[in-house]
Amino acid sequence: MFQIDHLGIAVKSLAQAKKFYETLGMNVMPEETVAAEKVRLAMVPMDGSRIELLEPTEDDSPIGRFLAKRGEGLHHVALHVDDIAGSIERLKAAGTRFISDEIKVGAGGHLYVFIHPSSAGGVLLELCEDPPTGV
Amino acid sequence: MFQIDHLGIAVKSLAQAKKFYETLGMNVMPEETVAAEKVRLAMVPMDGSRIELLEPTEDDSPIGRFLAKRGEGLHHVALHVDDIAGSIERLKAAGTRFISDEIKVGAGGHLYVFIHPSSAGGVLLELCEDPPTGV
Repeated sequence: MFQIDHLGIAVKSLAQAKKFYETLGMNVMPEETVAAEKVRLAMVPMDGSRIELLEPTEDDSPIGRFLAKRGEGLHHVALHVDDIAGSIERLKAAGTRFISDEIKVGAGGHLYVFIHPSSAGGVLLELCEDPPTGV
Repeated sequence: MFQIDHLGIAVKSLAQAKKFYETLGMNVMPEETVAAEKVRLAMVPMDGSRIELLEPTEDDSPIGRFLAKRGEGLHHVALHVDDIAGSIERLKAAGTRFISDEIKVGAGGHLYVFIHPSSAGGVLLELCEDPPTGV
């Protein structure tokens, strides 16, 4: 099953971005800090998907560098797939470029990999799969 | 109910973009041309949402100018809302900037409006509501 798992949006001010979505009537989850990524985030859940608002905690971080270079905007699109290993294999055979070949394991145990924007219509595309146990 | 209705992605080659999503195992719908927008598009449906691949039919068009200025990438995010008029009213009261104040009617009768990226974290955000009749 394919689904937009989330959209990651790089913002300068989490407070301002949260206010926008709250004004729209959406429920914004409490902020979390991901120290490893030097980012503070707030999730905006929706039916079947969510927006991930990302504010850097340091300029020298992936989101900080993105903001310096491109300004605020969409950082990545995460697509939920059922078979990440098979997807990678098929895409590689077709010449798709990945940020890193290795499948990584996220905080909740989900698997993920990033496809380079040059192979996905200019979009940094994350593929993610639920934890292998189905938990 | 809030939902990501679709992501509009500007691409140089619909054929190449379609190939990518098909390799991923997704079903790409037949191409359509929207003469008024000078665009050829292909929808990639997913569970609860879809990707809209957009290739300009002319350089002098919204998507053509976007490609010339920014290159391939996400053009807009469309958010499904239940009450577009109420949403606009609340956002305006909070100082949100819109591309045009007027609610427009799309091909299928749905209502839509675009929020300026400067008010929505650098993302060109479309709000859309189902046709008033519920059809």
